[in-house]
Amino acid sequence: MTSQLHQTMQTLVSVFHTYSSQEGDKNKLSRRELKDLLQNELSDYLETQKDSTSIDKIMAELDENRDGEVDFQEFAILVASLSVACYDFFCENQQ
Amino acid sequence: MTSQLHQTMQTLVSVFHTYSSQEGDKNKLSRRELKDLLQNELSDYLETQKDSTSIDKIMAELDENRDGEVDFQEFAILVASLSVACYDFFCENQQ
Repeated sequence: MTSQLHQTMQTLVSVFHTYSSQEGDKNKLSRRELKDLLQNELSDYLETQKDSTSIDKIMAELDENRDGEVDFQEFAILVASLSVACYDFFCENQQ
Repeated sequence: MTSQLHQTMQTLVSVFHTYSSQEGDKNKLSRRELKDLLQNELSDYLETQKDSTSIDKIMAELDENRDGEVDFQEFAILVASLSVACYDFFCENQQ
Protein backbone atom coordinates (compact mmCIF):
# COMPACT_ATOMS: atom_id res chain seq x y z
CA MET A 1 0.00 0.00 0.00
CA THR A 2 1.42 3.42 -1.00
CA SER A 3 1.93 5.64 2.02
CA GLN A 4 0.31 9.07 2.27
CA LEU A 5 3.73 10.71 2.17
CA HIS A 6 4.62 8.79 -1.00
CA GLN A 7 1.41 10.10 -2.63
CA THR A 8 2.15 13.60 -1.33
CA MET A 9 5.60 13.61 -2.92
CA GLN A 10 4.18 12.12 -6.14
CA THR A 11 1.55 14.89 -6.28
CA LEU A 12 4.21 17.57 -5.70
CA VAL A 13 6.16 16.29 -8.70
CA SER A 14 3.11 15.81 -10.94
CA VAL A 15 1.70 19.29 -10.19
CA PHE A 16 5.12 20.83 -10.87
CA HIS A 17 5.51 18.83 -14.08
CA THR A 18 2.02 19.73 -15.35
CA TYR A 19 3.11 23.37 -15.50
CA SER A 20 6.86 23.07 -16.15
CA SER A 21 6.34 20.99 -19.28
CA GLN A 22 4.22 23.61 -21.08
CA GLU A 23 7.11 25.49 -22.71
CA GLY A 24 10.92 25.62 -22.76
CA ASP A 25 12.83 23.43 -20.31
CA LYS A 26 10.47 20.62 -19.24
CA ASN A 27 11.98 20.55 -15.75
CA LYS A 28 11.82 24.26 -14.98
CA LEU A 29 9.05 26.81 -14.57
CA SER A 30 9.31 29.85 -16.79
CA ARG A 31 7.73 33.08 -15.50
CA ARG A 32 4.51 32.36 -17.41
CA GLU A 33 4.34 28.76 -16.17
CA LEU A 34 4.95 29.92 -12.59
CA LYS A 35 2.15 32.48 -12.94
CA ASP A 36 -0.29 29.81 -14.19
CA LEU A 37 0.69 27.47 -11.32
CA LEU A 38 0.35 30.15 -8.64
CA GLN A 39 -3.02 31.34 -9.94
CA ASN A 40 -4.48 27.84 -10.37
CA GLU A 41 -2.97 26.10 -7.37
CA LEU A 42 -2.07 28.70 -4.76
CA SER A 43 -4.42 31.63 -5.34
CA ASP A 44 -5.72 31.25 -1.76
CA TYR A 45 -2.18 31.76 -0.44
CA LEU A 46 -0.51 34.30 -2.68
CA GLU A 47 -1.81 37.64 -3.92
CA THR A 48 -1.04 37.07 -7.60
CA GLN A 49 -4.15 38.41 -9.33
CA LYS A 50 -3.71 42.05 -8.33
CA ASP A 51 -0.54 43.00 -10.17
CA SER A 52 2.14 41.34 -12.21
CA THR A 53 4.90 42.72 -9.97
CA SER A 54 3.83 40.19 -7.31
CA ILE A 55 4.75 37.40 -9.75
CA ASP A 56 8.16 39.02 -10.29
CA LYS A 57 8.67 39.31 -6.52
CA ILE A 58 7.80 35.65 -5.96
CA MET A 59 9.95 34.63 -8.94
CA ALA A 60 12.92 36.60 -7.55
CA GLU A 61 12.49 35.02 -4.11
CA LEU A 62 12.20 31.45 -5.44
CA ASP A 63 14.90 31.66 -8.12
CA GLU A 64 17.87 31.08 -5.78
CA ASN A 65 20.34 30.21 -8.57
CA ARG A 66 19.30 33.27 -10.58
CA ASP A 67 18.72 31.43 -13.87
CA GLY A 68 15.40 33.19 -14.49
CA GLU A 69 13.45 30.00 -13.92
CA VAL A 70 12.19 27.95 -10.97
CA ASP A 71 13.41 24.37 -10.72
CA PHE A 72 11.77 21.60 -8.69
CA GLN A 73 14.01 22.13 -5.64
CA GLU A 74 13.09 25.83 -5.49
CA PHE A 75 9.42 24.89 -5.90
CA ALA A 76 9.58 22.19 -3.16
CA ILE A 77 11.05 24.79 -0.78
CA LEU A 78 8.11 27.12 -1.58
CA VAL A 79 5.56 24.41 -0.76
CA ALA A 80 7.42 23.43 2.42
CA SER A 81 7.57 27.09 3.53
CA LEU A 82 3.86 27.64 2.79
CA SER A 83 3.00 24.47 4.75
CA VAL A 84 4.98 25.77 7.73
CA ALA A 85 3.35 29.20 7.45
CA CYS A 86 -0.13 27.60 7.37
CA TYR A 87 0.59 24.86 9.95
CA ASP A 88 -1.69 26.35 12.63
CA PHE A 89 -4.47 26.93 10.08
CA PHE A 90 -4.32 23.29 8.93
CA CYS A 91 -4.17 21.98 12.53
CA GLU A 92 -7.29 23.95 13.50
CA ASN A 93 -9.15 22.64 10.44
CA GLN A 94 -8.38 19.03 11.36
CA GLN A 95 -10.28 19.09 14.65
CA MET B 1 -12.54 23.34 -5.40
CA THR B 2 -9.49 22.66 -3.24
CA SER B 3 -6.31 22.64 -5.29
CA GLN B 4 -4.01 19.63 -5.36
CA LEU B 5 -1.28 21.64 -3.63
CA HIS B 6 -3.71 22.67 -0.87
CA GLN B 7 -4.49 18.98 -0.29
CA THR B 8 -0.79 18.11 -0.43
CA MET B 9 0.04 20.64 2.29
CA GLN B 10 -2.97 19.51 4.34
CA THR B 11 -1.76 15.88 4.12
CA LEU B 12 1.77 16.89 5.16
CA VAL B 13 0.38 18.51 8.30
CA SER B 14 -2.07 15.70 9.09
CA VAL B 15 0.54 12.94 8.67
CA PHE B 16 2.97 14.88 10.88
CA HIS B 17 0.27 15.51 13.48
CA THR B 18 -0.84 11.86 13.54
CA TYR B 19 2.59 10.92 14.89
CA SER B 20 3.62 14.08 16.77
CA SER B 21 0.51 13.99 18.98
CA GLN B 22 1.20 10.50 20.39
CA GLU B 23 3.34 11.63 23.34
CA GLY B 24 4.98 14.75 24.84
CA ASP B 25 4.81 17.99 22.81
CA LYS B 26 1.88 17.64 20.39
CA ASN B 27 3.70 19.70 17.75
CA LYS B 28 7.04 17.89 17.82
CA LEU B 29 8.21 14.39 16.97
CA SER B 30 10.06 12.59 19.74
CA ARG B 31 12.60 9.94 18.70
CA ARG B 32 9.99 7.19 19.09
CA GLU B 33 7.36 9.12 17.12
CA LEU B 34 9.90 9.84 14.36
CA LYS B 35 10.78 6.13 14.22
CA ASP B 36 7.10 5.16 13.85
CA LEU B 37 6.58 7.76 11.11
CA LEU B 38 9.68 6.73 9.15
CA GLN B 39 8.85 3.02 9.34
CA ASN B 40 5.17 3.46 8.43
CA GLU B 41 5.42 6.25 5.88
CA LEU B 42 8.91 6.27 4.43
CA SER B 43 10.20 2.72 4.73
CA ASP B 44 10.67 2.62 0.92
CA TYR B 45 13.01 5.59 1.15
CA LEU B 46 15.00 5.26 4.35
CA GLU B 47 16.84 2.23 5.71
CA THR B 48 15.32 2.33 9.22
CA GLN B 49 14.58 -1.34 9.91
CA LYS B 50 18.15 -2.57 9.97
CA ASP B 51 19.59 -0.77 12.99
CA SER B 52 18.51 1.85 15.44
CA THR B 53 21.59 3.96 14.76
CA SER B 54 20.00 4.92 11.42
CA ILE B 55 17.12 6.56 13.34
CA ASP B 56 19.64 8.49 15.45
CA LYS B 57 21.50 9.60 12.31
CA ILE B 58 18.28 10.81 10.67
CA MET B 59 17.20 12.48 13.92
CA ALA B 60 20.56 14.28 14.20
CA GLU B 61 20.33 15.48 10.60
CA LEU B 62 16.73 16.73 10.90
CA ASP B 63 17.00 18.29 14.35
CA GLU B 64 18.59 21.58 13.21
CA ASN B 65 17.82 23.49 16.45
CA ARG B 66 19.23 20.62 18.56
CA ASP B 67 16.25 20.34 20.92
CA GLY B 68 16.17 16.54 20.66
CA GLU B 69 12.91 16.63 18.73
CA VAL B 70 11.76 17.25 15.13
CA ASP B 71 9.34 20.12 14.56
CA PHE B 72 7.10 20.57 11.52
CA GLN B 73 9.57 22.85 9.70
CA GLU B 74 12.34 20.26 10.04
CA PHE B 75 9.92 17.56 8.86
CA ALA B 76 8.74 19.62 5.85
CA ILE B 77 12.39 20.10 4.81
CA LEU B 78 12.86 16.28 4.96
CA VAL B 79 9.86 15.69 2.68
CA ALA B 80 10.95 18.44 0.27
CA SER B 81 14.49 16.98 0.13
CA LEU B 82 13.19 13.43 -0.45
CA SER B 83 10.90 14.72 -3.23
CA VAL B 84 13.88 16.40 -4.91
CA ALA B 85 16.01 13.25 -4.49
CA CYS B 86 13.23 11.11 -6.06
CA TYR B 87 12.18 13.65 -8.72
CA ASP B 88 13.48 11.60 -11.65
CA PHE B 89 11.89 8.42 -10.23
CA PHE B 90 8.50 10.11 -9.95
CA CYS B 91 8.79 11.67 -13.43
CA GLU B 92 9.53 8.28 -15.01
CA ASN B 93 6.55 6.73 -13.23
CA GLN B 94 4.19 9.37 -14.57
CA GLN B 95 4.68 8.46 -18.24
